[in-house]
Amino acid sequence: MKEIEKDFLRYVNKITHYEEAISLMYWDLRTKAPANSVEQRSNSIATLSTELHKMRTSEQLKEMFTALLSDEATGVISEITRKSALECKKDYDLYKKIPIEQYEEFVKLQSKAESVWEEAKEAADFKRFEPYLEQLVEKTKTFIGYWGYDKNPYDTLLDQYEPGITVELLDEVFAELRDGIIDLLKDIQHSPKKFDPSFIYHPFPKEQQEAFSLDVLKQFGYDFQSGRLDDTVHPFEITINPSDVRITTKYDENDFRVAIFGTIHEGGHALYEQHISKDLIGTPLLAGTSMGIHESQSLFHEIFIGRNRSFWQYHYDRFKSYAKGQFDDVSLDDFYRAINEVKPTLIRIEADEVTYPLHVIIRYEIEKALFNGEIEVKDLPKIWNEKYKQYLGIEPENDGVGVLQDVHWAGGSFGYFPSYALGYMYAAQMKHAMLKDIPDFDDRLANGDLEPIEEWLRENVHRFGKMKKPLEILQDATGEPLKAKYLLEYLREKYKNIYDLA
Amino acid sequence: MKEIEKDFLRYVNKITHYEEAISLMYWDLRTKAPANSVEQRSNSIATLSTELHKMRTSEQLKEMFTALLSDEATGVISEITRKSALECKKDYDLYKKIPIEQYEEFVKLQSKAESVWEEAKEAADFKRFEPYLEQLVEKTKTFIGYWGYDKNPYDTLLDQYEPGITVELLDEVFAELRDGIIDLLKDIQHSPKKFDPSFIYHPFPKEQQEAFSLDVLKQFGYDFQSGRLDDTVHPFEITINPSDVRITTKYDENDFRVAIFGTIHEGGHALYEQHISKDLIGTPLLAGTSMGIHESQSLFHEIFIGRNRSFWQYHYDRFKSYAKGQFDDVSLDDFYRAINEVKPTLIRIEADEVTYPLHVIIRYEIEKALFNGEIEVKDLPKIWNEKYKQYLGIEPENDGVGVLQDVHWAGGSFGYFPSYALGYMYAAQMKHAMLKDIPDFDDRLANGDLEPIEEWLRENVHRFGKMKKPLEILQDATGEPLKAKYLLEYLREKYKNIYDLA
Repeated sequence: MKEIEKDFLRYVNKITHYEEAISLMYWDLRTKAPANSVEQRSNSIATLSTELHKMRTSEQLKEMFTALLSDEATGVISEITRKSALECKKDYDLYKKIPIEQYEEFVKLQSKAESVWEEAKEAADFKRFEPYLEQLVEKTKTFIGYWGYDKNPYDTLLDQYEPGITVELLDEVFAELRDGIIDLLKDIQHSPKKFDPSFIYHPFPKEQQEAFSLDVLKQFGYDFQSGRLDDTVHPFEITINPSDVRITTKYDENDFRVAIFGTIHEGGHALYEQHISKDLIGTPLLAGTSMGIHESQSLFHEIFIGRNRSFWQYHYDRFKSYAKGQFDDVSLDDFYRAINEVKPTLIRIEADEVTYPLHVIIRYEIEKALFNGEIEVKDLPKIWNEKYKQYLGIEPENDGVGVLQDVHWAGGSFGYFPSYALGYMYAAQMKHAMLKDIPDFDDRLANGDLEPIEEWLRENVHRFGKMKKPLEILQDATGEPLKAKYLLEYLREKYKNIYDLA
Repeated sequence: MKEIEKDFLRYVNKITHYEEAISLMYWDLRTKAPANSVEQRSNSIATLSTELHKMRTSEQLKEMFTALLSDEATGVISEITRKSALECKKDYDLYKKIPIEQYEEFVKLQSKAESVWEEAKEAADFKRFEPYLEQLVEKTKTFIGYWGYDKNPYDTLLDQYEPGITVELLDEVFAELRDGIIDLLKDIQHSPKKFDPSFIYHPFPKEQQEAFSLDVLKQFGYDFQSGRLDDTVHPFEITINPSDVRITTKYDENDFRVAIFGTIHEGGHALYEQHISKDLIGTPLLAGTSMGIHESQSLFHEIFIGRNRSFWQYHYDRFKSYAKGQFDDVSLDDFYRAINEVKPTLIRIEADEVTYPLHVIIRYEIEKALFNGEIEVKDLPKIWNEKYKQYLGIEPENDGVGVLQDVHWAGGSFGYFPSYALGYMYAAQMKHAMLKDIPDFDDRLANGDLEPIEEWLRENVHRFGKMKKPLEILQDATGEPLKAKYLLEYLREKYKNIYDLA
């Protein structure tokens, strides 16, 4: 058994080396690669990805993880090995249960659908995308048949992004969250308080935004010896190896918020990855445990730190010194209110922190109904628009800014969206729990002392990687199962002040 | 046979994809990678390199190239396939003739020797490095035994870097070159002409040097859609894929020559790679045909273009506009003389264009004698110093600036050095031949019209990749076998003017 454990660890270590090569090729494609290199690069990525796929679905691997997960192995192999074997089994089952031809067809369909989606979005023409989306949904339903499910077919999809999360749980917390936010939004909209945030759009040179972004990342403890910040159209975080966790941001010289909050958001993802225990190097456990927990860390930093008044109390003067005078006549309070203005919009990624979960919940409700056979693809635009009207009080003038706005479905990613709102709830619940250990949270921010906060996250969340499942992380860190009320309480408390609510 | 050809091409195409991943990982390590990423990155590179090695030495590949090189294949398969099969056979034989344990021992020894060499060089202590160099030489001699040789054991090493080059040929051309240069050097040293090149060392901001470097690369036709320029400690060119040929340079704000001539040099390598026929994509033929031909292209650009007076006649005013006034009182002639000053130095990579070949020839003579058993490793410092005294008239004050200066031997690279001087001779011979087709070469430079020159190189050298062997390229491009006289004639002609020689 010890021999098998050794062979297995060598095998999964080799997998991480292929992953490093592929990640770097992607990073380079999106940051540095010259335009003409793309075609050949894509072929090289495809070759290495195919090899990686073969390794993850080999009989050799199956034999090893089966042995390591047998009763004989209990107490003999390490816990890291056991959980690594479980991860490998999960991947193996995911791919092996689908006949290879059907999997390949799906990959081709995804790629075609993405390019059709781009055109359809541009033309605001859902009809063009509809047949592709239909096929994607149909094939995914077939896959669910292969994978199997307990209570609800959609659970199988949810589990792929957020292990342990079910329709039963989401129906409950999302309903509470949705109704609470709709109430709060109404109160905010009835508030007579109005701001003039026009100073936000004054020119702010890219280099200066970058300098401030770097400053903030350093304060968070982002390790530049194990990462770097670059500039891209779509910001992202990517882990190339355990000591090479890179982020990118986007600079809009006429709206500093894009870069500042984008950097803080990706920085939150990166801190998570940088703080995973080095004991997990060379195993599939050295990664964030789920999309939702990952998002909780980016949102914790972006919202609970970055949009906090105390944070700006510490940073505002320095921030002003980077700008070209545009904030000279803007008080801290006006600045704080402006960056927290609430205003329903059609586009998810441009949403404020109050309405954001509504965008996600609409997608959840639609996906769930689709996979439970309650609605059909052709009805999506109508249903989409009705829900926007009902929850946010606004309606898309066309499908380009409505049902076609996100790429996820074109990529065949169903069950992914809920992670965004889950991460937000996780973050709020963590913040609530953290206050017990760090009651002077706001004072710390106001004094620029983030260390205990980062230490808390590292200790309770980051270091475990995939050694713990998402709901296990949440339970252990906060002492409670998932609850919607912490996010609702946070939002009501914060916006009561900003909008002078009752 | 057609089936085998198809399988073979698929196989070698896959090899190029692994090469792309590895090249990118190296490029990143040397340009962008954060400090802490290095250890894990090295492991990932090692894993992919091992896979690549397996592919290059597999029985499957051997069966394919053996079939493709059999009589049956003649006339059935394409010439590209046949030459690719020959390349694969060459690689296969190189590795397979050595017992795998001995090869692995050698790789370990190299890596150890390189780090010992670094310390020894720093401490100027040859004794420390001596036992490692002895082992490297001994093992290489054993390998030559496995590989076999015709006339001279050193031929086998030469052939690995410069196929077709032999001791017999080098003895002749290097002796002529050496004696001719020593004569010229004496004449130059007797010249009463003296320059004051102190303006070279005035501060020249990095950004401005970069802007000028980019300008020059564009003028050469370097395609930035298929490449990029970055900043490193040691400049290099690297081909990541056929449409991704990157270069780096180094900026010294107190000596603009480092960046300007470094960029032009690496740019020459890159133009070669960018201009290889796209018909060779996916085969081992899409690469420069040898070290020497590669160096001929970098030196053609650096020396025959970049240090040409006509080139500066076109560029000098623009160059001045990038600088901070340091050349305002410097005439074009004074500038031209200063960048072409001849002065024997101890360090090869700092040598001027007259003395440079002497540095290389000294290494050739030493390597040849080592592998013919005429001298021993322990005698190297003494022999080195004597040769520097004899050829260059100067003697190293210690081994750090003498026999220990270059990394090549520590890396187990014997037979590599001659390529530097060969490339220089090739370039001079090409320049001579080019003048028949482009008699107004200098006028073209003076008018900034490099197109016909680049076109000549593309047509006669670049496009072939490894479809032609180095001496075949030279013969076809110049109509003659290798001759030392063209380089000697060029040097005498040029320095006659600069130093007012008889």
